Amino acid sequence: MSYNTFGREFRFTTWGESHGPALGATVDGVPPGVPLDEAFIQQFLDRRRPGTSKFTTQRREADQVRILSGVFEGKTTGTPIQLMIENTDQRSKDYGDIASSFRPGHADITYHLKYGIRDYRGGGRSSARETAARVAAGGVALAALNHLVPKLRIVSYMVQMGQMHLDRANFDSSAIADNPFFLPDAGAVDAWADYLDGIRKDQNSVGAAVEVLIEGCPPGLGAPVYAKLDTDLAAAMMSINAVKGVEIGEGMGAAALTGTENADEIRMGNDGPIFNSNHAGGILGGISTGQPILVRFSVKPTSSITTPRKTINQHGEDIDLITKGRHDPCVGIRAVPVAEAMAACVILDQFLMDRAQTGGVRGKIG
Amino acid sequence: MSYNTFGREFRFTTWGESHGPALGATVDGVPPGVPLDEAFIQQFLDRRRPGTSKFTTQRREADQVRILSGVFEGKTTGTPIQLMIENTDQRSKDYGDIASSFRPGHADITYHLKYGIRDYRGGGRSSARETAARVAAGGVALAALNHLVPKLRIVSYMVQMGQMHLDRANFDSSAIADNPFFLPDAGAVDAWADYLDGIRKDQNSVGAAVEVLIEGCPPGLGAPVYAKLDTDLAAAMMSINAVKGVEIGEGMGAAALTGTENADEIRMGNDGPIFNSNHAGGILGGISTGQPILVRFSVKPTSSITTPRKTINQHGEDIDLITKGRHDPCVGIRAVPVAEAMAACVILDQFLMDRAQTGGVRGKIG
Amino acid sequence: MSYNTFGREFRFTTWGESHGPALGATVDGVPPGVPLDEAFIQQFLDRRRPGTSKFTTQRREADQVRILSGVFEGKTTGTPIQLMIENTDQRSKDYGDIASSFRPGHADITYHLKYGIRDYRGGGRSSARETAARVAAGGVALAALNHLVPKLRIVSYMVQMGQMHLDRANFDSSAIADNPFFLPDAGAVDAWADYLDGIRKDQNSVGAAVEVLIEGCPPGLGAPVYAKLDTDLAAAMMSINAVKGVEIGEGMGAAALTGTENADEIRMGNDGPIFNSNHAGGILGGISTGQPILVRFSVKPTSSITTPRKTINQHGEDIDLITKGRHDPCVGIRAVPVAEAMAACVILDQFLMDRAQTGGVRGKIG
Amino acid sequence: MSYNTFGREFRFTTWGESHGPALGATVDGVPPGVPLDEAFIQQFLDRRRPGTSKFTTQRREADQVRILSGVFEGKTTGTPIQLMIENTDQRSKDYGDIASSFRPGHADITYHLKYGIRDYRGGGRSSARETAARVAAGGVALAALNHLVPKLRIVSYMVQMGQMHLDRANFDSSAIADNPFFLPDAGAVDAWADYLDGIRKDQNSVGAAVEVLIEGCPPGLGAPVYAKLDTDLAAAMMSINAVKGVEIGEGMGAAALTGTENADEIRMGNDGPIFNSNHAGGILGGISTGQPILVRFSVKPTSSITTPRKTINQHGEDIDLITKGRHDPCVGIRAVPVAEAMAACVILDQFLMDRAQTGGVRGKIG
Repeated sequence: MSYNTFGREFRFTTWGESHGPALGATVDGVPPGVPLDEAFIQQFLDRRRPGTSKFTTQRREADQVRILSGVFEGKTTGTPIQLMIENTDQRSKDYGDIASSFRPGHADITYHLKYGIRDYRGGGRSSARETAARVAAGGVALAALNHLVPKLRIVSYMVQMGQMHLDRANFDSSAIADNPFFLPDAGAVDAWADYLDGIRKDQNSVGAAVEVLIEGCPPGLGAPVYAKLDTDLAAAMMSINAVKGVEIGEGMGAAALTGTENADEIRMGNDGPIFNSNHAGGILGGISTGQPILVRFSVKPTSSITTPRKTINQHGEDIDLITKGRHDPCVGIRAVPVAEAMAACVILDQFLMDRAQTGGVRGKIG
Repeated sequence: MSYNTFGREFRFTTWGESHGPALGATVDGVPPGVPLDEAFIQQFLDRRRPGTSKFTTQRREADQVRILSGVFEGKTTGTPIQLMIENTDQRSKDYGDIASSFRPGHADITYHLKYGIRDYRGGGRSSARETAARVAAGGVALAALNHLVPKLRIVSYMVQMGQMHLDRANFDSSAIADNPFFLPDAGAVDAWADYLDGIRKDQNSVGAAVEVLIEGCPPGLGAPVYAKLDTDLAAAMMSINAVKGVEIGEGMGAAALTGTENADEIRMGNDGPIFNSNHAGGILGGISTGQPILVRFSVKPTSSITTPRKTINQHGEDIDLITKGRHDPCVGIRAVPVAEAMAACVILDQFLMDRAQTGGVRGKIG
Repeated sequence: MSYNTFGREFRFTTWGESHGPALGATVDGVPPGVPLDEAFIQQFLDRRRPGTSKFTTQRREADQVRILSGVFEGKTTGTPIQLMIENTDQRSKDYGDIASSFRPGHADITYHLKYGIRDYRGGGRSSARETAARVAAGGVALAALNHLVPKLRIVSYMVQMGQMHLDRANFDSSAIADNPFFLPDAGAVDAWADYLDGIRKDQNSVGAAVEVLIEGCPPGLGAPVYAKLDTDLAAAMMSINAVKGVEIGEGMGAAALTGTENADEIRMGNDGPIFNSNHAGGILGGISTGQPILVRFSVKPTSSITTPRKTINQHGEDIDLITKGRHDPCVGIRAVPVAEAMAACVILDQFLMDRAQTGGVRGKIG
Repeated sequence: MSYNTFGREFRFTTWGESHGPALGATVDGVPPGVPLDEAFIQQFLDRRRPGTSKFTTQRREADQVRILSGVFEGKTTGTPIQLMIENTDQRSKDYGDIASSFRPGHADITYHLKYGIRDYRGGGRSSARETAARVAAGGVALAALNHLVPKLRIVSYMVQMGQMHLDRANFDSSAIADNPFFLPDAGAVDAWADYLDGIRKDQNSVGAAVEVLIEGCPPGLGAPVYAKLDTDLAAAMMSINAVKGVEIGEGMGAAALTGTENADEIRMGNDGPIFNSNHAGGILGGISTGQPILVRFSVKPTSSITTPRKTINQHGEDIDLITKGRHDPCVGIRAVPVAEAMAACVILDQFLMDRAQTGGVRGKIG
């Protein structure tokens, strides 16, 4: 079983290799009547696109998405939506080294061991380029959510890059779109840029942590006990290339808290329950409370660095390898719009799952 | 869509409420011919059982498992295995308070909002009692793994409890079974016991972190890109009650590393590749490398504490609630055998998934 | 992959062998708030139960269903419903013959070849006794449909038994419940009884054809293109033991018709479209039209007959085998309530699937 | 839930509308290392292609398939295979009539009722053009089967067209490829041609029956009890446009047989069991016996005929409609290669399912 499909009700299957003719996503389960066109999806691809700053790979892909099916006269029809992105910048070059060598930290060796064959050009299927297809699918999910849950807002941003940490006292979501780090603190951008420049000049790379904030999510989403909302969000983030940890609310820090510290007490408000704190990150028992949902994840440093590393090749010979090519010094940056897309897909999927079982009717309080 | 089923090839569906007549797991996809009996499964349930020390709830359940189908003359037949555990210690009592009140930190309020109805007795379906069914299913998975991958070893243990941390210099896996904390350091047990006693006497509770170590896992397990081995492990752990974060290898700490620090360099050994370090935690590109797999997760402090907390009831009234009853001061302790069971289910599932697609044949090196 | 689960949104997994301690169904995805108790389900089991006439096996099972989870204070909670039926009449006897011999027409040989092991007692998992679990699950589906689609009516009945055919001119649905053949023609019951008596006295058995009529099904159910409503109904019926053919509307007869004969012309009525005929059997493009849905299927004659048959045993020896034991001369009779149950499960599943994607909103005409 | 995906281990999702820019299939779960190129798939598309005789629609599509992913240096890599077919002959024309009218016998009205919106051009998603994508996916399945089960042979052919029936005494599989009816009887081709010419000149259409014969299928394929091999084959055939009935072995005729007539007696041969007859059609208890597998299905007459039919339009007005355009007088003809493709997909899927659970090991006889 190969598993290139994400979701249950809202499902997308990504396909394509880094240096093949095209890649894309086959999206199924979209409700009919949702306004959708290529321009709407394109804006999300543009945010993710490599080559937009000196901190992301200089590969220049137009990343133009085409909708090949499922949309008629500007609206979804309920049939599968095929999103295709042609690969336009596969430089003709000698892949001799990568073809038979295993880059440390890469999936080269595990794909070889599992399949006995791999498209080695640019990492093939294991390339982060696959995330372009997710972002396109996420665009469809966001269009559907705008239609079905208009109050919902999803935003993602960096909270850490190596030794640099977001100062939450300065949190300003309006700053996110205006800097190459998706950093919600305009005043810290220059320092982060200097730091990353240093990393780059050292032929090195660095890890990152990204946060996703989901506001306006209705209560009741999440399907106990093996499709909990937090389970789905964790799986979605962990499926992104290079992610090594996922946290909901207090996350790993919950291990250090006591019950009195961690309790989110409740009082009744005019429009429903009001929680006095949000250690839970908006989810209890796997089901959304109506509070903001907070997900955080770490991204390991780019494995492809120009400092030589010890490794082996397919012949079982010890070699030293320098990974040439165009690579980001911090792949975590490009994970930011991907996380937003994945979160949108999870929320839409759970919304549709809930609508199936409960009809969207909520239990009453008061 | 309700989702009480875990897995793809090896699938189990848990059923049952905390205070209903019984609970259990319906297990499907088990290979035929695996030696299995109730005693084998019972040993795992005994490890998880409440009432085994003063640090776990005093509810005394025999937790005797019965195999109702799928096993004939001591071997699995390939048909569904029904595992049933009867609830024997549902004390007759007045649930008046819990029936209409929402305990802070519990799923009471979210189940009510989602379903409009809930079995409030002992938390009903959202009770950690559900994990008994997982442990039973995990016993079936372990029996199959013993048969199919005899070298595989899965062990889980606590690495943190509030302010107490495992000193990894003292790591001794042989100590795990001999103390109530599943702690791989016999010398630290008394200090942990004193600490937890203090928490308990303060009417409080505390969080924990648990680690799962999987040794002897063959390379090539994991199905890119949405059923990666790390994705599945993360989802499995996050689905356990009260878990708030999951890490693979370096985990959240990867955000602070540079590429040179994080690289796991490779040299060729006699039996295959040897990795000089294991920051990756045994998984690259979602596929196992053959190295030890390391998963870590946090468990929030028990929400049910006898210190009064502010909350509301179903009538929308503000109240103060003391959660009476028998509760663990650190639910993280009981999560340890549950994590082991879930890890076994993931590995078996991926083993069978891989066998379907590749026939279990591995790519050659050298 | 073993596959003992039916359905997508409304899912049930059956478990249990003919002569094990119990069998049952684990039902998931049921909407919350549906009135349900054991008595409601029991009425369907009672219709199916062996031993109710001289034309069905003399095995006397009480077939008492117990609800072990998922129902609280008389209503479903949205959590899994475990339905258990204990086997009470597994006569202690010598299975020596069946244990190592393969009964012709039975699954004995194919289970042995596939699994290398089988519970041979009474056919084990391949016994028609498995259908008791389906009927129980179907009872849950019918309870949910009564709640969600109160106008829906599902009825099934025999239309053929060997050389006997239902005369459709005499069709009277009120007669179905009052005779052992579920025959909608009271006047023909004696002739059918005489015919089957003759078959039985000849140590023989006979095939049958059963029809399911679904009235009041709303338009719009069915998920193109691989979960069409007719596809799902065909799969549901074909999964019943001994079924060899399934037809929708005109069925196999459609091969002989011309386009002018087959067309179901349409005129506008006060409450929506009115079809002048129903060759399509209520389904177009895999989606219900709102017309009555008609499904028909054949059941092969009982393979277990007391006339000796040539076969082989596990040692590869040629033998002659007489199948002793309690067997129905026409298993098609007992398939009637099973078909009704399966149809209910399909309709509920598709209703929930449609609700997820469209919210249950229908396109307008006029 | 929309459901455009077929299969479990070997899965394909078809996408695209009749008059959109392209259509295709996203194929996942393919074993790695299977030799595959576009030419291999193209031969199956060429057999199905419209415009190849005067008996199929005069729409002239090149139906050139492109492989966009998942194949590297002539072999499958185990990653998703995207198959795209561009639509080249969407004549620019006035769709005014079809846009708002519901053709009798078509999915126009049910798609409208379900989705409230539809791509009416050429039937959109409900067009039989979708089957081109299935045939392409079936080509991938056949390539994999050639690699994994080289002895397997799948052939399909017509057995009935209106009043014309195949004379089985003349059965000659070598004739199938050489006539426009896929008829295994060269001597009958002229009579069939004259018959269909008459139908066509009468502005009429006619139904058909198609048979699929699978030889060399290993025993043990089929997953009881809800993914039986016959269940899967029935669902696969019933999902093809215009199919109204499916039979396995004796099919609907089994209703008329007695147990002594229907029994397939067994004797031991040198290479395993030999069945003296094959009423079962090669499947017992949902699992293949090793005998030839026989599936038969009916296709209703083309609904689009140039004889005027009564119907309504979207405004709820009664109208008389003549369906203009290029239509086959017997759509059953084009269903023949589609059935072959679907059968290949089912067999491969079940082969991989079986390999997951049993490792492909068979029980021994003798």
